[in-house]
Amino acid sequence: MASKSIGIGLIGQKFMGRAHSNAWSQAAKFFDLPVGARLAVVSARDRKELGAFAQRFGWAKSTPKWESLADDPDVDLVDIGTPNHLHAEQALRMLEAGKHVACEKPLARTLAEARVLRDAAAAAGRKVKTFVWHNYRRAPAIGLAWNLMREGRLGKIFHVRARYLQSWGSKSTPMSWRYSAATAGSGAHGDLNAHLVDLTRFLMGEAIVDIHGAVAPTFVTSRAVPGTKRRERCDVDDAALFLATFEGGAVASFEATRLAEGHLNDNTVEINGERGSLRWSLEDMNVLEWCDAEAPPRLRGWTKILATSAGNHPYAAAWWPDGHIIGYEHGFTNMAADILRVLGGKKPELPLPDFADAYETCRVLEAALLSAKHRCAVAMNDVP
Amino acid sequence: MASKSIGIGLIGQKFMGRAHSNAWSQAAKFFDLPVGARLAVVSARDRKELGAFAQRFGWAKSTPKWESLADDPDVDLVDIGTPNHLHAEQALRMLEAGKHVACEKPLARTLAEARVLRDAAAAAGRKVKTFVWHNYRRAPAIGLAWNLMREGRLGKIFHVRARYLQSWGSKSTPMSWRYSAATAGSGAHGDLNAHLVDLTRFLMGEAIVDIHGAVAPTFVTSRAVPGTKRRERCDVDDAALFLATFEGGAVASFEATRLAEGHLNDNTVEINGERGSLRWSLEDMNVLEWCDAEAPPRLRGWTKILATSAGNHPYAAAWWPDGHIIGYEHGFTNMAADILRVLGGKKPELPLPDFADAYETCRVLEAALLSAKHRCAVAMNDVP
Amino acid sequence: MASKSIGIGLIGQKFMGRAHSNAWSQAAKFFDLPVGARLAVVSARDRKELGAFAQRFGWAKSTPKWESLADDPDVDLVDIGTPNHLHAEQALRMLEAGKHVACEKPLARTLAEARVLRDAAAAAGRKVKTFVWHNYRRAPAIGLAWNLMREGRLGKIFHVRARYLQSWGSKSTPMSWRYSAATAGSGAHGDLNAHLVDLTRFLMGEAIVDIHGAVAPTFVTSRAVPGTKRRERCDVDDAALFLATFEGGAVASFEATRLAEGHLNDNTVEINGERGSLRWSLEDMNVLEWCDAEAPPRLRGWTKILATSAGNHPYAAAWWPDGHIIGYEHGFTNMAADILRVLGGKKPELPLPDFADAYETCRVLEAALLSAKHRCAVAMNDVP
Amino acid sequence: MASKSIGIGLIGQKFMGRAHSNAWSQAAKFFDLPVGARLAVVSARDRKELGAFAQRFGWAKSTPKWESLADDPDVDLVDIGTPNHLHAEQALRMLEAGKHVACEKPLARTLAEARVLRDAAAAAGRKVKTFVWHNYRRAPAIGLAWNLMREGRLGKIFHVRARYLQSWGSKSTPMSWRYSAATAGSGAHGDLNAHLVDLTRFLMGEAIVDIHGAVAPTFVTSRAVPGTKRRERCDVDDAALFLATFEGGAVASFEATRLAEGHLNDNTVEINGERGSLRWSLEDMNVLEWCDAEAPPRLRGWTKILATSAGNHPYAAAWWPDGHIIGYEHGFTNMAADILRVLGGKKPELPLPDFADAYETCRVLEAALLSAKHRCAVAMNDVP
Repeated sequence: MASKSIGIGLIGQKFMGRAHSNAWSQAAKFFDLPVGARLAVVSARDRKELGAFAQRFGWAKSTPKWESLADDPDVDLVDIGTPNHLHAEQALRMLEAGKHVACEKPLARTLAEARVLRDAAAAAGRKVKTFVWHNYRRAPAIGLAWNLMREGRLGKIFHVRARYLQSWGSKSTPMSWRYSAATAGSGAHGDLNAHLVDLTRFLMGEAIVDIHGAVAPTFVTSRAVPGTKRRERCDVDDAALFLATFEGGAVASFEATRLAEGHLNDNTVEINGERGSLRWSLEDMNVLEWCDAEAPPRLRGWTKILATSAGNHPYAAAWWPDGHIIGYEHGFTNMAADILRVLGGKKPELPLPDFADAYETCRVLEAALLSAKHRCAVAMNDVP
Repeated sequence: MASKSIGIGLIGQKFMGRAHSNAWSQAAKFFDLPVGARLAVVSARDRKELGAFAQRFGWAKSTPKWESLADDPDVDLVDIGTPNHLHAEQALRMLEAGKHVACEKPLARTLAEARVLRDAAAAAGRKVKTFVWHNYRRAPAIGLAWNLMREGRLGKIFHVRARYLQSWGSKSTPMSWRYSAATAGSGAHGDLNAHLVDLTRFLMGEAIVDIHGAVAPTFVTSRAVPGTKRRERCDVDDAALFLATFEGGAVASFEATRLAEGHLNDNTVEINGERGSLRWSLEDMNVLEWCDAEAPPRLRGWTKILATSAGNHPYAAAWWPDGHIIGYEHGFTNMAADILRVLGGKKPELPLPDFADAYETCRVLEAALLSAKHRCAVAMNDVP
Repeated sequence: MASKSIGIGLIGQKFMGRAHSNAWSQAAKFFDLPVGARLAVVSARDRKELGAFAQRFGWAKSTPKWESLADDPDVDLVDIGTPNHLHAEQALRMLEAGKHVACEKPLARTLAEARVLRDAAAAAGRKVKTFVWHNYRRAPAIGLAWNLMREGRLGKIFHVRARYLQSWGSKSTPMSWRYSAATAGSGAHGDLNAHLVDLTRFLMGEAIVDIHGAVAPTFVTSRAVPGTKRRERCDVDDAALFLATFEGGAVASFEATRLAEGHLNDNTVEINGERGSLRWSLEDMNVLEWCDAEAPPRLRGWTKILATSAGNHPYAAAWWPDGHIIGYEHGFTNMAADILRVLGGKKPELPLPDFADAYETCRVLEAALLSAKHRCAVAMNDVP
Repeated sequence: MASKSIGIGLIGQKFMGRAHSNAWSQAAKFFDLPVGARLAVVSARDRKELGAFAQRFGWAKSTPKWESLADDPDVDLVDIGTPNHLHAEQALRMLEAGKHVACEKPLARTLAEARVLRDAAAAAGRKVKTFVWHNYRRAPAIGLAWNLMREGRLGKIFHVRARYLQSWGSKSTPMSWRYSAATAGSGAHGDLNAHLVDLTRFLMGEAIVDIHGAVAPTFVTSRAVPGTKRRERCDVDDAALFLATFEGGAVASFEATRLAEGHLNDNTVEINGERGSLRWSLEDMNVLEWCDAEAPPRLRGWTKILATSAGNHPYAAAWWPDGHIIGYEHGFTNMAADILRVLGGKKPELPLPDFADAYETCRVLEAALLSAKHRCAVAMNDVP
């Protein structure tokens, strides 16, 4: 066990608050780390719930004032698990205070906000580290994919196919911060395409250089406000699709939606190269499918690899024997472990996205939205 | 057995020649039809092979002159299974001669050609029937999907997701008519997206009204000419992707490629609606996946239906007991049966595409290519 | 095309009559064969249907008297597609007449009957060939599996797991010849385990030497007789399971049933060896799943091979381009082609089962039934 | 959070020690429980590792003497995660001391041992609770299956098909306690069939009444002893298969093996009933496949249900939003929560196995081994 430890200050106690709390408390149980994590303080607006939450997950202190984390000497890293519109203000404040910051994705509502954060991180100097919780990078199956791509096992890449399909956005779903541009920035686009853009940029190790078109419909234009008889306007996309080109020439398609019945949390990425293809799907996240295009033709096909093998698949050694799968939350724990490695002066198992990196993801998202808004669609009317 | 019969004149003896010959000879063995098919005459350029081909498949006559079919009194319907650049000339000649015409897809190389054919078919009058071999409409699983959509079982449609992925187009594949615009019109686009556009238009029963962007790269720009030391330029797309909107507001993505290792013949279509979703894949063509969004939540998910049940799935009664699958060629046989029904004055099991319908498919393909060519892509350089 | 041809006399016009008729007429269209098949005469009891059947499938003559085939000089091979209780009498008569015989499976109702047939085939001499329609041996994916096993790619075999699950045998299914021992011999056992025993013996290339226990329940003990108000007793098994050992030490489990909802025609065979495993399933019959135990651990898993590649997968060259699947009936066509090769003095693509071979399969089935009947089950009551 | 808490004393720090430690520390973070768990003391033989282990997982004390837990007033429940040969001695000692006991499976090496434990548990009185870690009962998908069966949704059951296939037992795997009867009792049988028998008895809610045959081969008869040049004899089964009948007439097949390449941890259970079928597989443990035999035939098939929905699937509410999967270890956490509910006077979400229940599972395992040993196999030699 590490003797030194990093004091964590968490903001947020909802879905992400739970996932992050769990990650910080699990990391040192399963990984050998140069430094541990101390659950120093948790902050959240809802005072009524906060005490119980802090006790449940073992946070030493709790406070409704997130600003206080900036001055708290127990806090080395501030972990931001709040809605998107709070990221910028909170992260800026903490960077100014010299704290490391780990922020939920998307980094910001808009590219302008993301740029401010990127610049603030740069200004804070090399001693201050930033991280963005693109947790799916940490699935062992994705780690295997990343390794294969680094080794050139796919050869020249022709196609990237990425989609994140969910189905919780029907017209009966009530209004929430996620349906308002003021709080969320965008809808499925910033929420789900953010994951896809990060994941494909990470795997490809290349920039996206062109957007070839986009469409971002809002299917449900108003929703009931819980506890009232009012409906509010939804001004974000329910779905967002765009086509793009990577630097090396690969064409890519992205699709995010909350209205695809049959898909609960279907983040699926496929890459086709000259020497092989690979495919990964979050709903079956322990599996990497791999097609070796250099296998003898009679034996060629998709191989379903259960990426649970210690020594063979990244992060797997920390968990259970081969064939014993891990779940959603382990991506956060694996990432917490890598953050602690970095803060302890070691290398992470796989590269971590910082604010500069997440800014690039936001830049692609913004360009796609621009393409959808100022679109030059060909109307079929124009084609006789 | 039918006492009357339709005299078939086939042009082509390659892949499609074999598939069509088989379809015409199998149809009356498995279906009860108002009229039979007489294999009257087959025409093809390669005289050396033609005799054996005709004998093998039971064609009564053979000729290297396709034009002669126009005047042959034994021929009621001319079936065109030649490369794309021959469709227009051959079909026009036969329509003028008053023959029914069944033409391979895509109907034509260009929209201009397709328009001529559409107009010629209209001019030929109602007694002359035209058909286009969009054979995948005839898979029983697609028939079930079509029925479900007609019944409104999917409700309002949000998403159409169509892709046709193959992998035979690597740089080692030699030059052929398929890689030249002069003979093929386009590459993967006309070959594969033609299927997808037809299939989704058929299932949706709606027009495509907008194209939101497209990209159609040529990854391999020259290929070796077989039997020579020359290479020739490839001036068609290796892949073509585009985004579109259907009349009712559903957004759609289309992708065709010949460079997706792991996919041999993967024509996959998925539709997501308010009340349910469905999915079909050619490599496992007997299966329809169906998600009933109105099932109790605890039992909701994708149901894998093996569409082989007589009385329950279109065309299935003609074949084998439940659970005994059919293959690729059966789509043609089912379509030949439907053509013979129409020519015998009966209704087909499912609607058949004629030249006017195939023209609409060509119109979408052309608009997508236009979008790819005169594109207003957002370059990432423009996004600071 | 072959100039010589084999005159076929078929007995039966139901399910198997259709499948065999199709196979004989398709074989020479798709394969290059040393001899062709002439559809000389078809025989069946139901005169009313027989004429139309003969015309539909192109049989030159038809007769309600199957015995007449024995003396018909147009007939070289008699193809028996009748219920099980007729196999022995019909096959014996034709062997005595010096005809080649291709008999449906199971070869006979009982081992005693099978023995008589085996001996009669031996007595008929080497010029008279016998065949049994274990058609699943002819799936290209099974052919690939057979090749892999012959090459030792699985190494020492530990496990054979075979099951044939159907679901048409509920209590509402009416009485038929399949539910009576007098006509069928046994139930799911002879119908379905016959396929499994043949297939696993074929793949393993080894004898089964021990039966370790069996159970063969009759869940539905009487059924309504169609067109009457009577019910008749069902005296055959609805399901039959047994455990066995192959000569080389592999342990095997067999299960056949007509009462497994969710399974329509699920003939699944898996083999696990020291160097690899393979798995095949009839409902997805174009696929072979293969696990190479010598692949690097990080890439190890099941590879899904679509066995449709000409030159790489047996029989595939006769059909369509890669990725275009074949169906149930093609097993019969592939087998008809192999029979015609053998009768034309050539080697079949894969070994064909003759009466002696099918007798060995019957011997295993009989031993399993014996084990089920004279069982020495351990009752839980005996275990305190 | 619960104010009262149960003091846990754990024996074992290997695979199960880690899984149980995690479960006790996670339970109260994710579930609302009437009592919490205090990680009071951990005991294990290897002193060198013990301190670090205790610190890592937050155990208050540690001791190499497991016996001391019996007298430790901080300990309310002793959790036994040791090799099989230690279960009996340790559990007996703790029951005598009046501690609750949660013991790893299989409960004991032999039926005789299991009987002693069952009787000791009974003698300890109703205030002392016993539990056996048949953790797979706690997968939400299994909970859904259990609910469906309780509601009669499958109707009369015909078939139970259970297999647990692993592949870590090749000849290169070194000797360990798992390969010796003295320490393990049996091999794959007690290790893996124990899970299957428990799981199927749990789902069926019925006793197994007959064993119809069994085979339990040892394929690898000696193994290298690590750190030496010696080999030791393996006197347990590498695989164990048996056939059985449940009280209500369903026939069942069981198979356990460590020599099935391609399967890492494949615990698969399928049940076929008159009204429907269900299937579950540990490697994809969040999924329940369900076939509703009363669905309209055209829509009938296997539905793949991702059992992650709060309110709809047992235990799911404790974890993440729908579509965010859980992993292997969560079965233990869910079970720890249910144990704490029981000790806090509440009902568990699903029934928990106690020593009396686990004894019944051992009884089936023993009967199967008896059947394999005193087998009355039919040798094929006896069948002429």
